[in-house]
Amino acid sequence: MPQNNNLTLRGRNIMNQLEPGLADKLTNSLKELDEDLPSIITDFVFGAVVGRKGLDIKIREMLTVASLVSLGNAHDQLELHMKGALNVGVTPQDLLEVVIQMSVYAGFPAFLNGLTAYRAALAATGHALPAASGLK
Amino acid sequence: MPQNNNLTLRGRNIMNQLEPGLADKLTNSLKELDEDLPSIITDFVFGAVVGRKGLDIKIREMLTVASLVSLGNAHDQLELHMKGALNVGVTPQDLLEVVIQMSVYAGFPAFLNGLTAYRAALAATGHALPAASGLK
Amino acid sequence: MPQNNNLTLRGRNIMNQLEPGLADKLTNSLKELDEDLPSIITDFVFGAVVGRKGLDIKIREMLTVASLVSLGNAHDQLELHMKGALNVGVTPQDLLEVVIQMSVYAGFPAFLNGLTAYRAALAATGHALPAASGLK
Amino acid sequence: MPQNNNLTLRGRNIMNQLEPGLADKLTNSLKELDEDLPSIITDFVFGAVVGRKGLDIKIREMLTVASLVSLGNAHDQLELHMKGALNVGVTPQDLLEVVIQMSVYAGFPAFLNGLTAYRAALAATGHALPAASGLK
Amino acid sequence: MPQNNNLTLRGRNIMNQLEPGLADKLTNSLKELDEDLPSIITDFVFGAVVGRKGLDIKIREMLTVASLVSLGNAHDQLELHMKGALNVGVTPQDLLEVVIQMSVYAGFPAFLNGLTAYRAALAATGHALPAASGLK
Amino acid sequence: MPQNNNLTLRGRNIMNQLEPGLADKLTNSLKELDEDLPSIITDFVFGAVVGRKGLDIKIREMLTVASLVSLGNAHDQLELHMKGALNVGVTPQDLLEVVIQMSVYAGFPAFLNGLTAYRAALAATGHALPAASGLK
Repeated sequence: MPQNNNLTLRGRNIMNQLEPGLADKLTNSLKELDEDLPSIITDFVFGAVVGRKGLDIKIREMLTVASLVSLGNAHDQLELHMKGALNVGVTPQDLLEVVIQMSVYAGFPAFLNGLTAYRAALAATGHALPAASGLK
Repeated sequence: MPQNNNLTLRGRNIMNQLEPGLADKLTNSLKELDEDLPSIITDFVFGAVVGRKGLDIKIREMLTVASLVSLGNAHDQLELHMKGALNVGVTPQDLLEVVIQMSVYAGFPAFLNGLTAYRAALAATGHALPAASGLK
Repeated sequence: MPQNNNLTLRGRNIMNQLEPGLADKLTNSLKELDEDLPSIITDFVFGAVVGRKGLDIKIREMLTVASLVSLGNAHDQLELHMKGALNVGVTPQDLLEVVIQMSVYAGFPAFLNGLTAYRAALAATGHALPAASGLK
Repeated sequence: MPQNNNLTLRGRNIMNQLEPGLADKLTNSLKELDEDLPSIITDFVFGAVVGRKGLDIKIREMLTVASLVSLGNAHDQLELHMKGALNVGVTPQDLLEVVIQMSVYAGFPAFLNGLTAYRAALAATGHALPAASGLK
Repeated sequence: MPQNNNLTLRGRNIMNQLEPGLADKLTNSLKELDEDLPSIITDFVFGAVVGRKGLDIKIREMLTVASLVSLGNAHDQLELHMKGALNVGVTPQDLLEVVIQMSVYAGFPAFLNGLTAYRAALAATGHALPAASGLK
Repeated sequence: MPQNNNLTLRGRNIMNQLEPGLADKLTNSLKELDEDLPSIITDFVFGAVVGRKGLDIKIREMLTVASLVSLGNAHDQLELHMKGALNVGVTPQDLLEVVIQMSVYAGFPAFLNGLTAYRAALAATGHALPAASGLK
């Protein structure tokens, strides 16, 4: 897929907001498999879909975390997007709320796995656990 | 489960925001099966989880839609929560963005099913399709 | 797969316990597709797996209902096995308990779909709804 | 997403092989929702992914059927791709084999749902059921 | 969620039957995240749902294992509930039957993963593998 | 299940094509759990289903990889079948195409997990990464 400079730039910019250096890291990893894969990720996934203007990036990352907790088939990506959510400014408290809400929709095992990923993402990004609050 | 008046009220209030009369409709349907089921739904699902203060109800409904599109196992509830999202003030444009973003995470079949539910929810709530926009 | 008389008989016997005439109905439907499919279902699924001696048929049908509510991808088979469970002597109360427990593990949408299938199975087998009980 | 003429043409060509008129039908349906959605489907899904040269279209449609039977969340798309597989030259016998193999990996309920979609796809494309063969 | 003493006690009692000390272990782990999470698990999951009177705890744990093998998204919880099943008196033979039956409904990969968890649960609870039996 | 010599031989033959020694390795592992399990795998899974004549083994392994990437619940079996696909003659290029196509149907997280398994399978079978090609 020939790169579309506009979408490529937008996609790379978002990837690097989620994790500094992510665009190059993922591009280098994918291009040794196939020359088209990097632009599918940068142009399509992050440029044309995640990079749309309709919702801000914080809400988009929360939606992605909701989806990945529900699917339950992608541990590494869940942790990546939890860290990404924190890196674009989602607060630890809000991220925890997303996970808690999934207890209802995706079941308690998916929810407990989400809590584990949440702790790991906080640790990896140097966040302390927020003080536990009461009935919200 | 003995009803906890506080949680029951909060849960019923949220249910009726999602769909006027939903609390009574679901309660009546469930209580003929088992006396405890209504309070599990009103007190736990909507009172203690969805009713938490951490996120506002519009974001919570968007998260629920993201989760249900991803799980793909609950057509009726997906449509209910899409209508609920519209009823609590999520705009059609934002709801469409949620569905579009799921194309990446849950696959295109789940995404296309999400679009079908989105059209049905707009029709059921008397919303016109918003004007199609360009690259967002 | 050449039929193994012993497993075929055992499998057919179980199928007919679940629904009178099911063995012939499913065999006739499958053999017009492929001659081997009937014995895969009668000999393997119902003879060699479901027909094993280790657990009685009532518990096996309850397990199948738990699995199908969790997978959420097979509405017709869920209703078949709910009717089958009732036909081999699982009480409506116990069947309802199975569904309620799945609320925790498979999420509330799967649970609500399970309740819908439960009502349909009761109606199809001529059972009245059992009286709703209190905190069990 | 601005259309890439090359990918658009290739994607539309594949869509119309799967079902005559599919490219226009899906494009018209999607563009009333958002101007970018048609090119995501034509350029990305069918042009840049399904249209890659590495595997021929018959194998690609068989893979898609295997995936959709396994996911179990997209009845309409499963039937569309089963008809598409037949339309690009997959034989009914081979399509049936794909479904039968999924009994092992996705479970028997998914497999039985696959058989139902297979019968519907044969009927919709004017194929007779192939003669049932013996042990293959 | 204010604790309901009755449900809390019942829930904690069940948790400790599944694994001695589980109630405190899980409560301590959860309460550093949010003060309400422990009671959601003790009061709702184990008190109000798993603790219902309708089915005995051995059957409930077998159902949970069937569900978790089917969902396939919760390795740690599957092993916990397999150990829990053994701890409340499900025999290793019966537990193995549950896993074998899931081969039909959830597919062979889920089944093989279930066997791996079964071996780990036997080892962790000091059970020897039961003698392999013949056609059951 | 008494062994059916014909199916047993056919099943074992296929297993050993996928991985030299796999038939004995899996048989020995399963028979210490239950005497019937080895024949369920050799006779049913590999003899009666995967060993059917309708499709050749290379296409069958590609279908299995498509299914396992989609289900996302069986990491070890995905890697086994990717190695098996390579061992029966699927080229690395074709195997990569299978994984890339799943990006559309099973979502990008499942696709990225598939790429990881693909790299591991190449390394385990002594294949170099094929040269990355351009727009296919």
